[in-house]
Amino acid sequence: MICSPLAIEDYIPQPSVDVSPPKWHLGHTTWFFEEMVLAVHSKEFSRYNPKYAYVFNSYYETIGDRVERPQRGWMSRPTVSDVLAYRRYVDERMEWLIEGISFFPKEVKDLVILGLQHEQQHQELLYTDIKYTLNLNPMVPVYEEDAELVNDYNSDQGFLEIREGLYDIGFEGEGFCFDNEKGRHKVFLPAFSIAKGLVTNQEYLEFIEDGGYEKHDLWHAQGWDWLKSNQLEHPMYWRKEEGHWKQFTLGGLMDLDPHAQLAHINYYEAYAFAQWKGMRLPTEFEWEVASGQLSWGSRWEWTQSAYLPYPKYQKAEGAVGEYNGKFMVSQMVLRGASVATSPDHSRPTYRNFFHPELSWQFTGIRLVQN
Amino acid sequence: MICSPLAIEDYIPQPSVDVSPPKWHLGHTTWFFEEMVLAVHSKEFSRYNPKYAYVFNSYYETIGDRVERPQRGWMSRPTVSDVLAYRRYVDERMEWLIEGISFFPKEVKDLVILGLQHEQQHQELLYTDIKYTLNLNPMVPVYEEDAELVNDYNSDQGFLEIREGLYDIGFEGEGFCFDNEKGRHKVFLPAFSIAKGLVTNQEYLEFIEDGGYEKHDLWHAQGWDWLKSNQLEHPMYWRKEEGHWKQFTLGGLMDLDPHAQLAHINYYEAYAFAQWKGMRLPTEFEWEVASGQLSWGSRWEWTQSAYLPYPKYQKAEGAVGEYNGKFMVSQMVLRGASVATSPDHSRPTYRNFFHPELSWQFTGIRLVQN
Amino acid sequence: MICSPLAIEDYIPQPSVDVSPPKWHLGHTTWFFEEMVLAVHSKEFSRYNPKYAYVFNSYYETIGDRVERPQRGWMSRPTVSDVLAYRRYVDERMEWLIEGISFFPKEVKDLVILGLQHEQQHQELLYTDIKYTLNLNPMVPVYEEDAELVNDYNSDQGFLEIREGLYDIGFEGEGFCFDNEKGRHKVFLPAFSIAKGLVTNQEYLEFIEDGGYEKHDLWHAQGWDWLKSNQLEHPMYWRKEEGHWKQFTLGGLMDLDPHAQLAHINYYEAYAFAQWKGMRLPTEFEWEVASGQLSWGSRWEWTQSAYLPYPKYQKAEGAVGEYNGKFMVSQMVLRGASVATSPDHSRPTYRNFFHPELSWQFTGIRLVQN
Amino acid sequence: MICSPLAIEDYIPQPSVDVSPPKWHLGHTTWFFEEMVLAVHSKEFSRYNPKYAYVFNSYYETIGDRVERPQRGWMSRPTVSDVLAYRRYVDERMEWLIEGISFFPKEVKDLVILGLQHEQQHQELLYTDIKYTLNLNPMVPVYEEDAELVNDYNSDQGFLEIREGLYDIGFEGEGFCFDNEKGRHKVFLPAFSIAKGLVTNQEYLEFIEDGGYEKHDLWHAQGWDWLKSNQLEHPMYWRKEEGHWKQFTLGGLMDLDPHAQLAHINYYEAYAFAQWKGMRLPTEFEWEVASGQLSWGSRWEWTQSAYLPYPKYQKAEGAVGEYNGKFMVSQMVLRGASVATSPDHSRPTYRNFFHPELSWQFTGIRLVQN
Repeated sequence: MICSPLAIEDYIPQPSVDVSPPKWHLGHTTWFFEEMVLAVHSKEFSRYNPKYAYVFNSYYETIGDRVERPQRGWMSRPTVSDVLAYRRYVDERMEWLIEGISFFPKEVKDLVILGLQHEQQHQELLYTDIKYTLNLNPMVPVYEEDAELVNDYNSDQGFLEIREGLYDIGFEGEGFCFDNEKGRHKVFLPAFSIAKGLVTNQEYLEFIEDGGYEKHDLWHAQGWDWLKSNQLEHPMYWRKEEGHWKQFTLGGLMDLDPHAQLAHINYYEAYAFAQWKGMRLPTEFEWEVASGQLSWGSRWEWTQSAYLPYPKYQKAEGAVGEYNGKFMVSQMVLRGASVATSPDHSRPTYRNFFHPELSWQFTGIRLVQN
Repeated sequence: MICSPLAIEDYIPQPSVDVSPPKWHLGHTTWFFEEMVLAVHSKEFSRYNPKYAYVFNSYYETIGDRVERPQRGWMSRPTVSDVLAYRRYVDERMEWLIEGISFFPKEVKDLVILGLQHEQQHQELLYTDIKYTLNLNPMVPVYEEDAELVNDYNSDQGFLEIREGLYDIGFEGEGFCFDNEKGRHKVFLPAFSIAKGLVTNQEYLEFIEDGGYEKHDLWHAQGWDWLKSNQLEHPMYWRKEEGHWKQFTLGGLMDLDPHAQLAHINYYEAYAFAQWKGMRLPTEFEWEVASGQLSWGSRWEWTQSAYLPYPKYQKAEGAVGEYNGKFMVSQMVLRGASVATSPDHSRPTYRNFFHPELSWQFTGIRLVQN
Repeated sequence: MICSPLAIEDYIPQPSVDVSPPKWHLGHTTWFFEEMVLAVHSKEFSRYNPKYAYVFNSYYETIGDRVERPQRGWMSRPTVSDVLAYRRYVDERMEWLIEGISFFPKEVKDLVILGLQHEQQHQELLYTDIKYTLNLNPMVPVYEEDAELVNDYNSDQGFLEIREGLYDIGFEGEGFCFDNEKGRHKVFLPAFSIAKGLVTNQEYLEFIEDGGYEKHDLWHAQGWDWLKSNQLEHPMYWRKEEGHWKQFTLGGLMDLDPHAQLAHINYYEAYAFAQWKGMRLPTEFEWEVASGQLSWGSRWEWTQSAYLPYPKYQKAEGAVGEYNGKFMVSQMVLRGASVATSPDHSRPTYRNFFHPELSWQFTGIRLVQN
Repeated sequence: MICSPLAIEDYIPQPSVDVSPPKWHLGHTTWFFEEMVLAVHSKEFSRYNPKYAYVFNSYYETIGDRVERPQRGWMSRPTVSDVLAYRRYVDERMEWLIEGISFFPKEVKDLVILGLQHEQQHQELLYTDIKYTLNLNPMVPVYEEDAELVNDYNSDQGFLEIREGLYDIGFEGEGFCFDNEKGRHKVFLPAFSIAKGLVTNQEYLEFIEDGGYEKHDLWHAQGWDWLKSNQLEHPMYWRKEEGHWKQFTLGGLMDLDPHAQLAHINYYEAYAFAQWKGMRLPTEFEWEVASGQLSWGSRWEWTQSAYLPYPKYQKAEGAVGEYNGKFMVSQMVLRGASVATSPDHSRPTYRNFFHPELSWQFTGIRLVQN
């Protein structure tokens, strides 16, 4: 279990509005099943504690008021053990629901699957939020001595050529997908060539050493403001100690491995690096088209596509409709998956999205040439 | 001249970081010719006042430091009359340059044209910035008694059908265009139908009266936050006085004309209205393809396209390269032109762009159905 | 022990910059002994963990950098159990130091006593900070079912007359006092009469019901801004539920007892109430002079004296000099003690001080008439 | 007239919330006569323009809503010429009122005098606000070539000894004074010695060169935060250009005269300098007692007294009651007068007050030794 290495104290802090306490993630994913499935589809169900809806609702206006997002770290209660009891309560009732139904309506099944997908998303956030919080701690804590989520390496090099053409984009088939992937449609793409490997720490170091963080013409105006007002000179988890580059990882502070894939850069940094290389980031359509011939899955890859609806996008009715659609402004699409993503929680049509200044996910850079 | 109806006092205030004082616009457009053309291509030229570069540079990092944008309204000097003398000085030298050259290099010619286009853009900003400032004044000032920029009306109704197909997008031909329009390329579009007229005040009133500003599910999460934190219930220039809707215009405060085209809504409002109608905004590509068969030009029309580079976008070398490219993040594209746009400063491939919360331009809504 | 009723989770959050996590209080008071006593006066002493100085220094610039105050709630490590081990380590060495010294220099003795007084101050802050955090929790937690720090009652009524005269102010004698009490000096006071009891909830309710929070002329301009921008209508721990006034206490949410002493109002509120009564708050000199004939000790009593140095105030050399002196601006003096104050941590010359907008201490109002 | 050297443009900007546009000062002082005198005591009077009350009310809650203070610089209308016409209108009616009354009630007379005193205060603010705005202008404008308000010099040196004793404090006599000076009362003072001259630029330079802005122990905690967050190394109007100290004055940018009196430091700076000298600032009572034997009037002198009510302070009824009393929290008292003060607008009992971080007045330092 992701939280096993944590001390109880680690479940509580929220050092940024974009990061949630581990306790909150555990409660919120449970609440999702309680509120979206059990409360609607299980007749005998009574809520574990009516106040929990207020504590664990994230952003569902349809469902009601909630603890303001920046205040999640103020909540010492319910305790971790309360939340674990809550999880057991809801898990049990979910089992009863599933076992007790001879005929399972599609609507319920879909909600259960959505709940599981939702939980997988929060499993990834648990890793990235824990990392973010530990990194700010002057004790330089180690999440796990032999943590796996440290370095990843490219297996391929060079560029893949993709021909001009009309391509199909979007999800197709039987399995699960989010509403934002639906509406398979044609997109015309000019020819392009896309890197088989991701940018490495070494390449990014060269960018830094060439003054990449001091050359305004490589950056968006907004990125330059972000960089200047935060006085940044390198990626978020890098530190220079006595002349040596180190990186904070879930295994603690380590020497930077130049051959490993770069991680934890935001869109501004990804764009500036590509400018410096004289290349660019792929669009999400280019990425999807090329993905079948690429090795991917260790870093969320920034695309130069804004997060917008597909041509026939329809959001679902009710609270579930707030899952994706209301965020389709001012965010950029990331494609692929990361080392922190649940193993079966990725597919070539998956559309992840974040604000351009955020870098706390395991993000990376794949370059494109025309 | 746009500034003729102004009092000297009106040239100074800057009530929002997105709005510049009229005096600054006059100085900045002059500085553009001085710095981009005369200082580079006129050998005998000496600057009118070396300090003006600091005062009138907008955002060109290549050229140097400048008055911080939110501080433009603190600058009482140079005076309006100083700035007018500066304009005469630079205008005269521009004339000398143009008259004195037998062979006019393309590079210089292009810069002169860019300077003129730049000035036209600021002419439009003069109207919108003056309107913004006067609107905040409790004296409810009138810019011009018989101002022209008040109401506009639709000449057409109904929807135009556009067939599925592969269309060419981007500028082509001989005349001027900005770098962001270049790189003509193919885009595949599914069939759609697009409104021949723009949304009217009457239609938007129905949206308000149906509780449009109170229904979270119509809005982006970010739009809902904007609306709530600013406690808004109607568009920026509307006021309800004693039960009657009025709108602030360059001709003063007037009764709202229900038949006129809606103006001054931001992207969040445009999106929410379209959601309420069960329709959507066009993409910038749909707009461009349909534009030949539409009547347009009275309102900048919000599209649901983010402002991103075209496939082979290349920004220019040097300071001029900062004109467009560095803004390609977090903004939305508007197409067409408005009543405040200079007559010859529009074309179907023109890409205007603003942040989604801004509504001080003459913006409007055109709907699309699938 | 004050922290016994807490869950581990309760040791972590910091919902306001003025409030510290219980864990931080435990570590900080320990650090005070380690840094001010052991590190300086115990030759064989080695620090428990060199990083703890960075984590647990509060505001001593002399000693070095530290976790920024608003970030104390981000620190999940060291854990509570680490901190308790740290306390045992330092306690033990303090015992060794004390036992091992045949001749105890006055300087060391004074620092040990200061460390104990410092710890007593933080014991009171533990109560008030725990209360503050629990109050913000939607679970409405109870600190202790039969908590003692709930209601206090006046034993006396009426007013005490004090004659005009020249009085001695400031500490005198053998025991401990802070540097800010020293410099006994004469102050001339006109005659005044001072209430024997403190303002009750009932009296404050009358103020509220008479529109006290809506009458600007009762408030300081700064207090009115505070009230308006926070949209306040009653004291911090009061709530009106279904027409009934309740108050949040360490024993949970309870009906407001009209006969109990008012608690948790800030200086603005104390001043406005006194204005409404046609009376005023005492100066700290009036309070000190009258204190011998008054019953006090259940509420910190706001005075209308600003926190300023006494005529011959001298701050100590070194880090200890930062204890009091550097806060002598923009704060108001409170006199007496509260129910949360350590039993032997009060005397008539004690000068407590807080910013005028703060009300999370057990503060109350004593009125004066001329 | 103070505004004669100004361009119309100079009447408009408001570069800080503490600074008002000259146009606003002209309108506000006129409004004071209109609202406090004519509207109440002149039966036939009709307001010049009913909207002006909204534009020119400063902070009188009793009178009604107003332009928010930070927005005064947004108001291009009424124009300067409108405001001058308004002044003539009100001046004329004030003359009629005064001439037309055979018997002049004391209440009216007092208000007229208050209006004149109020106007004198704003005359001083005109100088300091104009200076503040011009100083921020990169054109480095000159208010007046041969401005008088540049340098002042000490006429006396050494220290004056004042004996311990019971002294009378507060206004007494026939002339005008503000309500905050009233309530003459006794104060007991220990012996002290007070400097006959004010601190000079030379002395302050020595403080800077000795690292005064880098030694935290000289500053209040709040002062140190102010200094660090603004990255300050010298007083507000000083600049170091090519190794030479210069100061901005109403006569433009000039070499710093080491022999002139220091000006434009805030309370934090005054306190830190005194700490560095091993001395202190006087209390307002010490200042008042010594004032008869001192030369003063060129700088407002920071005292170490907070601005608090005198023992029997009574604020006036109605709007006039908001003049002084509601500011008696979080401000420090300054005594004396400055070169910018109207000649007959000073007396030994005058209590000026400002927030400790403000230095845009002509403030100086007088030292005290015990």
